[in-house]
Amino acid sequence: MQYRLIIEYDGTDFHGWQIQPRARTVQETLEDGLARLLGHPTRVAAAGRTDAGVHASGQVVCFGSERDIAAATLRRALNALTPADLTVRSAEVVPDDFDPRRAARSRRYVYRIWNRREPSPFWRRYAWHVPWPLDLETMHAAAAQLVGEHDFSSFRASGCEATHPIRTVLRSELARRGDLLRYTIEANAFLRHMVRNIVGTLVEIGSARRGPDVGALLAARDRTMAAATAPALGLCLTEVCY
Amino acid sequence: MQYRLIIEYDGTDFHGWQIQPRARTVQETLEDGLARLLGHPTRVAAAGRTDAGVHASGQVVCFGSERDIAAATLRRALNALTPADLTVRSAEVVPDDFDPRRAARSRRYVYRIWNRREPSPFWRRYAWHVPWPLDLETMHAAAAQLVGEHDFSSFRASGCEATHPIRTVLRSELARRGDLLRYTIEANAFLRHMVRNIVGTLVEIGSARRGPDVGALLAARDRTMAAATAPALGLCLTEVCY
Repeated sequence: MQYRLIIEYDGTDFHGWQIQPRARTVQETLEDGLARLLGHPTRVAAAGRTDAGVHASGQVVCFGSERDIAAATLRRALNALTPADLTVRSAEVVPDDFDPRRAARSRRYVYRIWNRREPSPFWRRYAWHVPWPLDLETMHAAAAQLVGEHDFSSFRASGCEATHPIRTVLRSELARRGDLLRYTIEANAFLRHMVRNIVGTLVEIGSARRGPDVGALLAARDRTMAAATAPALGLCLTEVCY
Repeated sequence: MQYRLIIEYDGTDFHGWQIQPRARTVQETLEDGLARLLGHPTRVAAAGRTDAGVHASGQVVCFGSERDIAAATLRRALNALTPADLTVRSAEVVPDDFDPRRAARSRRYVYRIWNRREPSPFWRRYAWHVPWPLDLETMHAAAAQLVGEHDFSSFRASGCEATHPIRTVLRSELARRGDLLRYTIEANAFLRHMVRNIVGTLVEIGSARRGPDVGALLAARDRTMAAATAPALGLCLTEVCY
């Protein structure tokens, strides 16, 4: 049987998704819980490997087991076996050949910016604090230029293992609610640090430290032209669409 | 000079507002910062003494000092001297006879309930997790019965030091946004545990474990008639009105 879970995690105290020595990771935490529940070592595959500090409210993971467990039981038991910063939202049985990464049509991320002079005790774990005023309209217009199929080399981190830099952005928009800015981006797939590099650039645009011509930046295909990477803590994988 | 601050704090790691031996409290943390900034021991008075675990996004505090400091400097310097779970939003000079507790016309609290089967990694510090479905309309109608001047003895904790149990509620309403319920209550003043006792009762009403007649509950003036106290972590002092 192959099972699919939708999980949420607060990335603050995890060193990212992927298992690594001497670090608490989401994958290891989940695999530990599954091993205790199923009675055998279990390997999980994720739709997107989030970096250290990045959160998820809609990560999708799959694993196989010889055991036949009702989905509701699996969800309940696993939530009892995992810590409070990781929650299993739902569980279901999927076909054996379902691959959560390859089957995904698109992923959606939200990046939060706390945009007030003073930091927030409540958002300090979940939003990047930018204390100076940002020009939302200019940022929103710049973000909209990213929609479509483009070469995202200018926003691609070194060490990115993707075979090519072409990605299709389906949605790229910014909204403000009080002191919180919320940038939503959906694409078929993402390059390494792509969202955080885009956000770093949008914040420079909103601060009038760079012009709003994101089209020229894309055309340059040069990572050194874009801004520094925005911090991980503002980023959240909110949905994987199939 | 007397100064007035509006402060925010994440109550999770504080043992409430008031100084006590061998416990980290908001008052002590703030007074430590002020003593380092001003160079003399400083006592602060708050508009409302929040209990252990209760948050604030609009607490008002006052203190006196011989030193004449620009309000913006005070705010900035104090934020540099206090930990990340306490933020000074604003500072200003007020008349020497201003008393933040006595001068307050009303206080507003928000109580958050995370109402989904699974807990939330993101709201686990800021909302009470109620995993079963709640009937929002019935709760909202019950909450509305609290508006006006009433004897709140049924919602008054033992040990409450108020001279009488009569309070005037100006606003009492419930709203849902996704999986989050938000109960807002504003009153001239509050009895000990009053908001949390009201919320505990509203949740029993929304669970059909008790009838919606809050008027009869008020008339009984008997604490044993109302429900158990809701947990502190859902409560936030959002505003003090003058």
